[in-house]
Amino acid sequence: MASNEIEQLIRLLARLPGLGPRSARRAALHLIRHRETLLDPLSQALNDTAQSVRECRVCGNLDTADPCGICMDPRRNRSVVCVVEGVADLWALERAGSFDGIYHVLGGVLSALDGRGPEDLRIAQLTERVAAGGIEEVILAISATVDGQTTAHYIADRIAKTPVSGEQAPKVTRLAHGVPVGGELDYLDDGTLLTAMKARLPA
Amino acid sequence: MASNEIEQLIRLLARLPGLGPRSARRAALHLIRHRETLLDPLSQALNDTAQSVRECRVCGNLDTADPCGICMDPRRNRSVVCVVEGVADLWALERAGSFDGIYHVLGGVLSALDGRGPEDLRIAQLTERVAAGGIEEVILAISATVDGQTTAHYIADRIAKTPVSGEQAPKVTRLAHGVPVGGELDYLDDGTLLTAMKARLPA
Repeated sequence: MASNEIEQLIRLLARLPGLGPRSARRAALHLIRHRETLLDPLSQALNDTAQSVRECRVCGNLDTADPCGICMDPRRNRSVVCVVEGVADLWALERAGSFDGIYHVLGGVLSALDGRGPEDLRIAQLTERVAAGGIEEVILAISATVDGQTTAHYIADRIAKTPVSGEQAPKVTRLAHGVPVGGELDYLDDGTLLTAMKARLPA
Repeated sequence: MASNEIEQLIRLLARLPGLGPRSARRAALHLIRHRETLLDPLSQALNDTAQSVRECRVCGNLDTADPCGICMDPRRNRSVVCVVEGVADLWALERAGSFDGIYHVLGGVLSALDGRGPEDLRIAQLTERVAAGGIEEVILAISATVDGQTTAHYIADRIAKTPVSGEQAPKVTRLAHGVPVGGELDYLDDGTLLTAMKARLPA
């Protein structure tokens, strides 16, 4: 029906998360209709990204520099490492602007169902960083799901068993659980409400 | 936060219909994570499309050939022209496989609100095709919205007033209204139900 070139474009767009076959067709037509302002720049941006973006060898972040901008930033506190599942979580924390330490990207969580074990994540690289010394705190900013918490426990255990040259093992912490800011109690699950109630603070 | 290249990629992806800022970030990470199988092919597909896809000068369809494959197909019935708002509608009709004539893509509908008049649509090109003769029927496959129906009336009127050299003016028809096949009555609007009831047929 459509030409092979458009068909191929639609097929690839449909493989992006969030786009199905129908929205991929709409997106393809939108791109063709806005050739100069969208299609050509997007093609260029994909090329630029493919050419220049690399995984940081230290933390696993994506950047044009390796080590990445965050790892090389002299203003960041290098004694606090925040462990996240993926780069999207790192971006979210950076947008929140609540953290001035450095990161460690795991690349997922342990999952028996998906057959993802410790060797599939960047856990060995994390314990190496800890063993090298100079880290006082490891914050586990991992999803509060079963797999996420299993992963957090596993990592805390591994860090506790990691010998640090001439220093104490770093403190391991996790993010606080509770009611999301701006969240309505009505829509929250029982687990979150229970946790928030137990961890209540003076107003 | 992310590198400039990734930021630019996210900005452009967010301009695709169906993707917001959050899903654009997810899409960008997905692309970077699947560089060989998705990012590079998508970049290539965008290039191929930009290089080769043109608007058919006869019907307004998008294709690598001009006139397009449908206009040039000797098996299509050239005496029936189906008028559609956009290429997406043409694709939908082709997928349904219910039409063996040729098309005319308007490029939208008349809209007082959006300031889109007859000169912004490919209506003059349509009356030129009609005036050239050889067309027996024009099917108006235009949305059953207020703007769509205004457009359909306007086009029917223009075709009736178009002198056809040595022939009768073509018959102008529209798609049938009614209950969508597989649609539940429960979810249908009153207008559709009313129309379907009025146009009822022997079972």
